[in-house]
Amino acid sequence: EFSIQDDGSLVSRRGGGGMVTALTAAARFLPATWIATAMTDGDRRAAEEANGDTLKVPDNEIYVRFVVVPRNVYQRHYYVFCNPLLWFLQHYMWNTPRTPNIGRAVYEAWESGYVSVNEAIADVIAAETQNDAQPPYVLLQDYHLYLATARVREKVPGATILHFTHIPWPGPRYWGILPQFMRKTIHEDICAADIVGLQTNSDVRNFLHCCESMLKGALIDYQQRHVTYRGHTTAICAYPISVDAPGLLEFAGSAEVQRFKEQIGARLGTQTIVRVDRSEPSKNVVRGLRSFELLLERYPEYRGRVTLLQFLVPSRSELGVYQTYTDEVFEAVDSINDEYGDGDWQPVHVFYENNYAQAIAGMCLYDVLFVNPVIDGMNLVSKEGPLVNERDGVLVLSDLAGSYEQLSEYALGVTPTDLEGSVRALRNALTMAPDERRRRAAALKRLVQEEDITFWLERQLRDLLAVTKGAL
Amino acid sequence: EFSIQDDGSLVSRRGGGGMVTALTAAARFLPATWIATAMTDGDRRAAEEANGDTLKVPDNEIYVRFVVVPRNVYQRHYYVFCNPLLWFLQHYMWNTPRTPNIGRAVYEAWESGYVSVNEAIADVIAAETQNDAQPPYVLLQDYHLYLATARVREKVPGATILHFTHIPWPGPRYWGILPQFMRKTIHEDICAADIVGLQTNSDVRNFLHCCESMLKGALIDYQQRHVTYRGHTTAICAYPISVDAPGLLEFAGSAEVQRFKEQIGARLGTQTIVRVDRSEPSKNVVRGLRSFELLLERYPEYRGRVTLLQFLVPSRSELGVYQTYTDEVFEAVDSINDEYGDGDWQPVHVFYENNYAQAIAGMCLYDVLFVNPVIDGMNLVSKEGPLVNERDGVLVLSDLAGSYEQLSEYALGVTPTDLEGSVRALRNALTMAPDERRRRAAALKRLVQEEDITFWLERQLRDLLAVTKGAL
Repeated sequence: EFSIQDDGSLVSRRGGGGMVTALTAAARFLPATWIATAMTDGDRRAAEEANGDTLKVPDNEIYVRFVVVPRNVYQRHYYVFCNPLLWFLQHYMWNTPRTPNIGRAVYEAWESGYVSVNEAIADVIAAETQNDAQPPYVLLQDYHLYLATARVREKVPGATILHFTHIPWPGPRYWGILPQFMRKTIHEDICAADIVGLQTNSDVRNFLHCCESMLKGALIDYQQRHVTYRGHTTAICAYPISVDAPGLLEFAGSAEVQRFKEQIGARLGTQTIVRVDRSEPSKNVVRGLRSFELLLERYPEYRGRVTLLQFLVPSRSELGVYQTYTDEVFEAVDSINDEYGDGDWQPVHVFYENNYAQAIAGMCLYDVLFVNPVIDGMNLVSKEGPLVNERDGVLVLSDLAGSYEQLSEYALGVTPTDLEGSVRALRNALTMAPDERRRRAAALKRLVQEEDITFWLERQLRDLLAVTKGAL
Repeated sequence: EFSIQDDGSLVSRRGGGGMVTALTAAARFLPATWIATAMTDGDRRAAEEANGDTLKVPDNEIYVRFVVVPRNVYQRHYYVFCNPLLWFLQHYMWNTPRTPNIGRAVYEAWESGYVSVNEAIADVIAAETQNDAQPPYVLLQDYHLYLATARVREKVPGATILHFTHIPWPGPRYWGILPQFMRKTIHEDICAADIVGLQTNSDVRNFLHCCESMLKGALIDYQQRHVTYRGHTTAICAYPISVDAPGLLEFAGSAEVQRFKEQIGARLGTQTIVRVDRSEPSKNVVRGLRSFELLLERYPEYRGRVTLLQFLVPSRSELGVYQTYTDEVFEAVDSINDEYGDGDWQPVHVFYENNYAQAIAGMCLYDVLFVNPVIDGMNLVSKEGPLVNERDGVLVLSDLAGSYEQLSEYALGVTPTDLEGSVRALRNALTMAPDERRRRAAALKRLVQEEDITFWLERQLRDLLAVTKGAL
């Protein structure tokens, strides 16, 4: 993301979400051109200065070509259709008896927002690849670009296309929140890919189930995980995304992180629970705090001894619903600190800023990492934490986070809506024997190292090669 | 349901939901003993007077044996665990970032409410069938009794068991709202049945998908729709429930309904839209009213001409969330009538009472029947209406109602969250050519008559016989 400084110069800055973390890491391994919609004024100016050509991001091995669409088209695409509508849908976050209320604005956001941006992206991909000696590999990312899949197939018929979605894939009934023609078009168009990549096996089964339910005449092979629709076969695969393990370990050892570790040291309790969340309703921060409150209520011996460090990354505060959620978080924090704090001890500390080094420092130091999203595509915090932690910390993990499929054996599972279960899990984590902590922490670290971002990328590239040989 | 009159005598009264409609009808065809939990004080007294034996419901061919559990056990079972928790879950009605918050009360409601009632029911079934010459057929109904399935299997190993669920079966991720051990136990225990009956193919696929996701080692056959778990195979089948067509037609022709038809006649517009809903958030009454409001806003020619009759059956008003919803309904009605009514014409009339004859009278008279539940197991209004309607009325039907699988070809589908689409569908319905109306109305009537409650029962009984011969 480029932004314009006060002095008129352009700087590039890294975004906050898990997807950016993963893709920035991936770029180290994969020489490729990124084609992206210009989001900010800075992006637009960078695109202008590059004259429609590819440009290199300073201090990164990333080449970007920006697609510039009219501001109002982008607004409709991103701020009406993708966020919040699709994001909320794919995270099961609608309050279905009352929201959403799909009116004309959403129809317009589809027609002259979502469809238009997807067409523009496909046009640029076609232009970028037209002089290639061989049919290109096209990797499309996430929920902003479902329809581009079919459009790339149309314009570049020989392309091998993989569409990867970073967020959860709901079952067909929850997709029913979207008007029928929209949900059907999304499934039809994404099935133009050779491979549809999703985070987990659960997402793969949901996707197959959706195609069976929505695409008349589609053949679904649940064993092989293939969808055959209108003569084209698509493989549906789970590629759980991860972190750049060597890069992150190096960063965790840096002087910058070391400095934050020293600062945070002053805030540690006898035992310390750490949370790292974007301030976003799906991350379940409020229920997390309430569980901690219940723990202090039920086990008075923890008062004055167990501290919760809440790293909270500001997120989409321009959307009212996010601001409301952030307010609820701070209310919960205040009520806990009022009830259980005293002059010497404050049960919850909030670090409310986008400071990756500081959050990593916190993850080095936890005794318990508490990750309880309501529903999450993967959740990279649950992989970053065990990788960098230095105290044999225990991972308490939502059984609805995508990472739970990989990590469940060595984590303590919690159901995100379940305060009672969360208190029991936190209690188990805080009282776990050192040997057991060590065993689990080591296993988690090994797992994250083995299945890191390179593993994620390699599996996709191997499968893309297999597709071109007709062998997937 | 028995209630105690002022004079101390007992009267029996028919409940309001779709399940009661269907089962009362079914009792006409199937001689059997119903075993039910005593809900009301009247039920308890009736049970007492029967001395634990079977009793006959006056004016009905129904034999009932009440299971009496302590009041607080029943409270936890019904008012904490089943309603609202399970009902809201299976209708996708939770506002996941904020509700539910599962605390100790829910754990207790499970342990000494839901489990206890299910055990008590199974005990009585075992006692009732112990002297039978042949192994019994046991038909268990709905979400109150998932665990009874495994307990009956244990106590009466030779029984042939069918468990039928009247409400939707969500996919595994939405079931994730329930603590892991509870959702797993429910799926394990219900798989003790020989047949798991659900309303629709969509529910069947969700159920298979849940078993694959939750039951380790289960073999799922998506083609045959079988789950094999711990050596026992269960067939998962769709039996869409329906109405007692001949009985209902007879009732629609009765003097009682005739009288209501005459009264309602005074309220009809040039064209009349009818809705019949329990006052319940899943029925989507508010969005239905808002769509009608948008119609009047966009097409001024309908003002003074198109009337909406809203039959609204009071429901569970002891639960705050239902009362709040009813308040929202009346606010929406008032705002429409304030905006578009004048001295001579009122756009919306509400009939707020549990008056089945009156509602059937309304269904005889509609030009458009508007049924848009957010998510519904089946929805019998969408079958009752086309059966009794006398005006070639058009059915506008939620594509998330269970009945949509059967009726979609002849109804106009709407997505329940989609106000824009609903306005378009209502407009289409109101302007549809007479020939087309006639063709669709006739087809719907035929369909409902062919696949009525007898068809529903017969298919289950045939399948139960097939199971005893090892042929399902």
